[in-house]
Amino acid sequence: LGLKKRGQGLRSWIRVDAATGSSQIMEVDKFTMMRRCDLPARDLRLLDPLFVYPSTILGREKAIVVNLEQIRCIITADEVLLLNSLDSYVLQYVVELQRRLSVPPGDAFGGDSSPDYLPFEFRALEVALEAACTFLDGQAAELEIEAYPLLDELTSKISTLNLERVRRLKSRLVALTRRVQKVRDEIEQLMDDDGDMAEMYLTEKKRHMETSFYSDLSHPLGTIGAGQSVSAPVSPVSSPPESRRLEKALSLARSRHDSMKSSDSNEHIEELEMLLEAYFVVIDSTLNKLTSLKEYIDDTEDFINIQLDNVRNQLIQFELLLTTATFVVAIFGVVAGVFGMNFPIKLFDQPGAFEWVLVTTGLCGVVIFCSFLWFFKYRRLMPL
Amino acid sequence: LGLKKRGQGLRSWIRVDAATGSSQIMEVDKFTMMRRCDLPARDLRLLDPLFVYPSTILGREKAIVVNLEQIRCIITADEVLLLNSLDSYVLQYVVELQRRLSVPPGDAFGGDSSPDYLPFEFRALEVALEAACTFLDGQAAELEIEAYPLLDELTSKISTLNLERVRRLKSRLVALTRRVQKVRDEIEQLMDDDGDMAEMYLTEKKRHMETSFYSDLSHPLGTIGAGQSVSAPVSPVSSPPESRRLEKALSLARSRHDSMKSSDSNEHIEELEMLLEAYFVVIDSTLNKLTSLKEYIDDTEDFINIQLDNVRNQLIQFELLLTTATFVVAIFGVVAGVFGMNFPIKLFDQPGAFEWVLVTTGLCGVVIFCSFLWFFKYRRLMPL
Amino acid sequence: LGLKKRGQGLRSWIRVDAATGSSQIMEVDKFTMMRRCDLPARDLRLLDPLFVYPSTILGREKAIVVNLEQIRCIITADEVLLLNSLDSYVLQYVVELQRRLSVPPGDAFGGDSSPDYLPFEFRALEVALEAACTFLDGQAAELEIEAYPLLDELTSKISTLNLERVRRLKSRLVALTRRVQKVRDEIEQLMDDDGDMAEMYLTEKKRHMETSFYSDLSHPLGTIGAGQSVSAPVSPVSSPPESRRLEKALSLARSRHDSMKSSDSNEHIEELEMLLEAYFVVIDSTLNKLTSLKEYIDDTEDFINIQLDNVRNQLIQFELLLTTATFVVAIFGVVAGVFGMNFPIKLFDQPGAFEWVLVTTGLCGVVIFCSFLWFFKYRRLMPL
Amino acid sequence: LGLKKRGQGLRSWIRVDAATGSSQIMEVDKFTMMRRCDLPARDLRLLDPLFVYPSTILGREKAIVVNLEQIRCIITADEVLLLNSLDSYVLQYVVELQRRLSVPPGDAFGGDSSPDYLPFEFRALEVALEAACTFLDGQAAELEIEAYPLLDELTSKISTLNLERVRRLKSRLVALTRRVQKVRDEIEQLMDDDGDMAEMYLTEKKRHMETSFYSDLSHPLGTIGAGQSVSAPVSPVSSPPESRRLEKALSLARSRHDSMKSSDSNEHIEELEMLLEAYFVVIDSTLNKLTSLKEYIDDTEDFINIQLDNVRNQLIQFELLLTTATFVVAIFGVVAGVFGMNFPIKLFDQPGAFEWVLVTTGLCGVVIFCSFLWFFKYRRLMPL
Amino acid sequence: LGLKKRGQGLRSWIRVDAATGSSQIMEVDKFTMMRRCDLPARDLRLLDPLFVYPSTILGREKAIVVNLEQIRCIITADEVLLLNSLDSYVLQYVVELQRRLSVPPGDAFGGDSSPDYLPFEFRALEVALEAACTFLDGQAAELEIEAYPLLDELTSKISTLNLERVRRLKSRLVALTRRVQKVRDEIEQLMDDDGDMAEMYLTEKKRHMETSFYSDLSHPLGTIGAGQSVSAPVSPVSSPPESRRLEKALSLARSRHDSMKSSDSNEHIEELEMLLEAYFVVIDSTLNKLTSLKEYIDDTEDFINIQLDNVRNQLIQFELLLTTATFVVAIFGVVAGVFGMNFPIKLFDQPGAFEWVLVTTGLCGVVIFCSFLWFFKYRRLMPL
Repeated sequence: LGLKKRGQGLRSWIRVDAATGSSQIMEVDKFTMMRRCDLPARDLRLLDPLFVYPSTILGREKAIVVNLEQIRCIITADEVLLLNSLDSYVLQYVVELQRRLSVPPGDAFGGDSSPDYLPFEFRALEVALEAACTFLDGQAAELEIEAYPLLDELTSKISTLNLERVRRLKSRLVALTRRVQKVRDEIEQLMDDDGDMAEMYLTEKKRHMETSFYSDLSHPLGTIGAGQSVSAPVSPVSSPPESRRLEKALSLARSRHDSMKSSDSNEHIEELEMLLEAYFVVIDSTLNKLTSLKEYIDDTEDFINIQLDNVRNQLIQFELLLTTATFVVAIFGVVAGVFGMNFPIKLFDQPGAFEWVLVTTGLCGVVIFCSFLWFFKYRRLMPL
Repeated sequence: LGLKKRGQGLRSWIRVDAATGSSQIMEVDKFTMMRRCDLPARDLRLLDPLFVYPSTILGREKAIVVNLEQIRCIITADEVLLLNSLDSYVLQYVVELQRRLSVPPGDAFGGDSSPDYLPFEFRALEVALEAACTFLDGQAAELEIEAYPLLDELTSKISTLNLERVRRLKSRLVALTRRVQKVRDEIEQLMDDDGDMAEMYLTEKKRHMETSFYSDLSHPLGTIGAGQSVSAPVSPVSSPPESRRLEKALSLARSRHDSMKSSDSNEHIEELEMLLEAYFVVIDSTLNKLTSLKEYIDDTEDFINIQLDNVRNQLIQFELLLTTATFVVAIFGVVAGVFGMNFPIKLFDQPGAFEWVLVTTGLCGVVIFCSFLWFFKYRRLMPL
Repeated sequence: LGLKKRGQGLRSWIRVDAATGSSQIMEVDKFTMMRRCDLPARDLRLLDPLFVYPSTILGREKAIVVNLEQIRCIITADEVLLLNSLDSYVLQYVVELQRRLSVPPGDAFGGDSSPDYLPFEFRALEVALEAACTFLDGQAAELEIEAYPLLDELTSKISTLNLERVRRLKSRLVALTRRVQKVRDEIEQLMDDDGDMAEMYLTEKKRHMETSFYSDLSHPLGTIGAGQSVSAPVSPVSSPPESRRLEKALSLARSRHDSMKSSDSNEHIEELEMLLEAYFVVIDSTLNKLTSLKEYIDDTEDFINIQLDNVRNQLIQFELLLTTATFVVAIFGVVAGVFGMNFPIKLFDQPGAFEWVLVTTGLCGVVIFCSFLWFFKYRRLMPL
Repeated sequence: LGLKKRGQGLRSWIRVDAATGSSQIMEVDKFTMMRRCDLPARDLRLLDPLFVYPSTILGREKAIVVNLEQIRCIITADEVLLLNSLDSYVLQYVVELQRRLSVPPGDAFGGDSSPDYLPFEFRALEVALEAACTFLDGQAAELEIEAYPLLDELTSKISTLNLERVRRLKSRLVALTRRVQKVRDEIEQLMDDDGDMAEMYLTEKKRHMETSFYSDLSHPLGTIGAGQSVSAPVSPVSSPPESRRLEKALSLARSRHDSMKSSDSNEHIEELEMLLEAYFVVIDSTLNKLTSLKEYIDDTEDFINIQLDNVRNQLIQFELLLTTATFVVAIFGVVAGVFGMNFPIKLFDQPGAFEWVLVTTGLCGVVIFCSFLWFFKYRRLMPL
Repeated sequence: LGLKKRGQGLRSWIRVDAATGSSQIMEVDKFTMMRRCDLPARDLRLLDPLFVYPSTILGREKAIVVNLEQIRCIITADEVLLLNSLDSYVLQYVVELQRRLSVPPGDAFGGDSSPDYLPFEFRALEVALEAACTFLDGQAAELEIEAYPLLDELTSKISTLNLERVRRLKSRLVALTRRVQKVRDEIEQLMDDDGDMAEMYLTEKKRHMETSFYSDLSHPLGTIGAGQSVSAPVSPVSSPPESRRLEKALSLARSRHDSMKSSDSNEHIEELEMLLEAYFVVIDSTLNKLTSLKEYIDDTEDFINIQLDNVRNQLIQFELLLTTATFVVAIFGVVAGVFGMNFPIKLFDQPGAFEWVLVTTGLCGVVIFCSFLWFFKYRRLMPL
């Protein structure tokens, strides 16, 4: 069973190396991956293609877990592990990342201090963000091109077919808006939390780890102050395995160093913040488009509703007029019917009675009809 | 009365031991439970099966009070006390928790520093979160399976029965959304408050308590600084009982130690934060499903409304046409009636008068009808 | 005039003593009350029964001003001053508070360190919160019992009477929701602001005040640092009277002590936070009920709207059918009328002409009617 | 041109002196005012009666800029400069402020430590807040008195006139709500920002300024630490004029003093916070009224919509019934018409045929009508 | 290809010099611009006229990137680089900025410490804000002038043309509101983040940079403490080029200086905060106008909907009345038809039978009609 479980966990990953930029396809099971990137099972599950989780960017101890639309990857200080799929966006991501890595840092445009310089993990993140933003903006543009003519057509001709198409369009719009909103919220949340951003400087964290490991060995007692000496005797009674303890001690040492160089760290956070800020503007602009489209649809529906109501009122006005006319005609018909009864009346013998009856009834009918018209106008039921 | 009250407080709890993983059923009254977990009556009331309180996770001095859907339990550093019920989810929770506890830490997958390692209280919390998320996601999926075909059926055939079913579905959706939202908000709130998260490290708090208790005994005067020496003489005049005072002094001492090792504590908060973050993504994805469903329902209702209005307008258009036709026919009828009157007219004697009258009236009728049609088209009341 | 003003300010208050739990009714004017509790006129106005202010809990220097539904009181470290009224809730509050005060602290359930222990001001506050929560939850439950049957009745039978009742119900629901929301917001705001919560520890503040007053007398120059010595010469030029100055100096001294024992203060804030948290869950659950009810009403109204529209369309469909049938009948009538005209036609003399005319016209009518039916079905205007 | 510009800036201000309480009318141009209160042109523009800016309270270096409904003034530590206008509220403000200033502090009600004591700037601010709150509450009450009867009338009698009146009422309600909301938000924002509140203690700031000016002169080198000595050599190369530099140095010195007496400053912020809190409750209660009214209008509109729909359905039901009856009558008419045709039929000669035809047709008509009724009832189109 | 890319990046910029105020037009490619202002490619893209990004103000290391409606510029401590376009607002911006720069600081109105003094970057920002606010307010006013008469016309005369115009107006309103909202949010966000505001003091940052560069040279070892000495050996192993390292060391040194003079920096932030605050009030007032207009449109649509429904009900009432009348007339017609049948009845021979039949039938008709009227009134279907 355990073996079967491992087998189930086998997934195809594309690995892009930070140093060389070379890519290779690997079949790795879930547990190897967990240990490789120091990630709990929970976090790996978020990348699982079987589940559809919303966009997420999580900064972990040694890795950044990225789930942005098609791009599902784990970024560490040394490599990007990208969940393989047949989607063309995944391949484009690899190609673009390799292209950027192949440009030697500081040599990009002839100068040596390009303002574009970023550590590896942020280059990988930037390519992922760019891919997601471009993809979503493309989808939004596609929707816009389809929607506006359809809506304008709908205002002039309301048909079940057009309504059904608008309904399907709205479903797509809502789904896309949700995805864009999610990416936007994720970026906004990251920008709001300085701690999370600091956590994502993997290259620097790794460097410090190595440095402090050696420096701790060289002066084992000196700088570790009172706080550390108290905490040390505590650890033996604790349950976590020793290897983990050691790592914590290192991270503790690291954080002590950090506090001494906090200004340097702040400088860095700014770099990431600037990166996120720029893509925030881009995705926000996409969201704007979609919200505008949503409001255009809503306005169009309001318009259609009022327009339908207005047309209906006009229809009923004419129906009322016709009913009035039919009523007058019916009265005429009754008069004719009355004189068609087989009673012998003296009127029949009078000359000109036929014409007189017709004219009188006709005039009465016209008077009745005009009275109704005047009354409807007086009650403001009809513009006339 | 006091005895009766105690009797009322008797509830059946399932106790899962942290060390052995063994479970047992206990009948404990409310007040024993309050003292056992150091919880005020208020907090226990939130677990009471008689009341239906929304989902809650509260970090207290010595316990975490968890009320997540079916799972209502108190987690301490040594045990989980689960409110017994006939619900199968409660049993599944116990089985799953025992399974996880039976896996020796650090030995899970052959290695000894699994990234999945967590202290007991968070394992218990994770199982509860997983149970709640799975349960709610299952309910959401069930609702989806039922809703989408029903809504598509409704668009093609609007009937009172279908409307009633959609209405009941909406009620269920709203209730479920509220519950999912509540779990999501609870997790989000916890993540936002570092203090609350720190409060929940029960194992560590317990260890510190014991350690500092002994270390305080060994150096009773040395490290306790000026602040403590001022506060000490204050305590005698205060009202709370001495046993509580002592505890406070300990917690005071503890917090002093904490501040010296704050980086270690921060490291820990991160562990819990990562745990919560992962389940936040899961429950957020469930909420997303439900919100999408809600919007699909809303869109469908908008569609139905416009569609009903549109059909009604078409019905009234045809009614108007028929009324027009009836009007023309009525005029024809009146002409027939007029010539059916018993007046002696010379026209009756002219040959071909019958045909002439019929053709003339018929032509007039057609002209009148066509004029109306043209007028309706001109006023854009009908597409024709 | 000044005298008259004082007379106007006379109000009946119930005073509950913290130490003895005895209650007495007092007639106190506004200005005595202001000085007694060190409250500005503004704050007392918020309790005025003439105005209807929303629920408020304000922490002041020496008092907590509580306006929770029927309960309008001022809580100090020594007493509760409750605005007297004929409302039964006010009396119940006094009785319940006295019952709780009569239980000796630490002796509640045989043990001496009950987790329920709280200083006097929080016991008084808890009783007020409980009263308000119980009252509001009762009102919500009452509304629910009334609303659900009414709404279900409305869906089956829409009448002006039922609509009017639902409308009145909605007004009550909105008003109650607002009040519950206000209490909930007030509790939430308090929990969010640590400073406000710390401000409300009246017993402790009073104890510190007394202690520091004596300790300041004993070492008048020693511990007061540079900051104080600078501020001291400033005070003579300032306008506030000396007695107030002294108080400020004391509060200054106090706050200095506080900062040395901040961990102790944090511990306390936690106690109040736990108290508020528990009632927050309770009132939040009440708010949940009301919001669910609101959404049920909204869903019912949506259902009724669509249902009314749907029924109307069906009515108009039948009307269209009948109009069609009437049209056919009218044609038949015209044919009959035509042959009823007094023109001499040869057809009259042919045998079987009567039957032939009837059958032909009848068949034509049936064909016309069926064509219309088929056309309506083709245009999907009727299900048929 | 410059002269003309100055001329344009001439405005009439009412000046109330802090010390004497005397008021005088001044014609001051914009630039004098800018220098007098140390305010940039931007801030003065916000008070300009030509523009209609929403309510604002801005704390500046030496002044508080207040724009609350009719009251547009600048409050400094020494005076209130009130923009003159013909509005009676402006005059009332001056009278009320003078009345309060005339009451000697600490002598208000015989005692010398009134809890109502406040520095001048907050007394002036309180009078402005009170004026604005009273004014807005009055407007809200007026609207309520007008609205509720009108809405109740509308539910019983829907007429174009009533609808038009409700529409105008809604416009006024929206406008008033916006203004109340703006005042409430302004107060809330101030309360949330401790820095802004501290900024508004003008009297204290002025006193410190004077004190530190002299104390700095007396010990020019002593207490200014390393930080200051570094910053000092920087200033010569900077662009702002020297007089401004000096001021900054003073403010720098002041802020250093502040940090030493931060508890005193906190005490003060509390005073202002209490003041704002009280008026927040008042304006919040006004906002509550308006929101309730808004919801009452919305509920009434919902009611009217459903009621109109319901009445319409009933009208159409009766129309359908009448159409059915007319259809039956038309059939009867056709039968009569058929027997009125001039064909010679044998039936005419049979005795009792007349009665038999009438009875048969009548019975058929009744059967047809009843079938329709039963069918409509079966389809639940009519309650019957 | 690389050359072509550079060619594509060529844009026309207007450069305004900070010192002289002179402006010149430059053709600069993207990469020169990136290095000139130390901006990454991402940030420059936000100014690209090909994309339509929402309004943005970004504070970077050496520049402020401003994208406010027509004004797209980069502000550094020494110059403003404005994206050239044919829009007249761009030219006006340059003219207005030059006008303000030409006024010598401190000499504006005869005095030497004008409260209006601001460093160059904020003057440039203020002119941009003013231009954007004026432009948007103008657009809002234009919309208002057009909208209110149109809406009032719509309430009296609902026509397809008017509805279409209102719909187009709503689209414009939504688009404008979004833009105003975006500018408002941008200003609000800046005001909420002290760090971002501090980042934007370019002149001061530049001055500090230069100062600390020289002072670091003069005392290379002295003040750089333990933290720096630890971080120094780390840098050689890091990847970024040396020139960038140096810059970071400088910024590190700078931030150390900053912390010593934090009060000075706070003073500055206040200057920018006041600037932003003032324009926030202005843009907020514009947003208010637009929101009011939106609500006026919504209210008008509600009014139209109820009005249309109300008129329709009245139309149907009259139709019902006419149908009733037609029904009565049809009965009369049937009676006439019955007596027109060719059956020989004895009634025909009785004298006065004709009158008797007419009167009886007429009376029956009147009774039937009145019964219907009474019934409709009783069912409250008609006001009558």
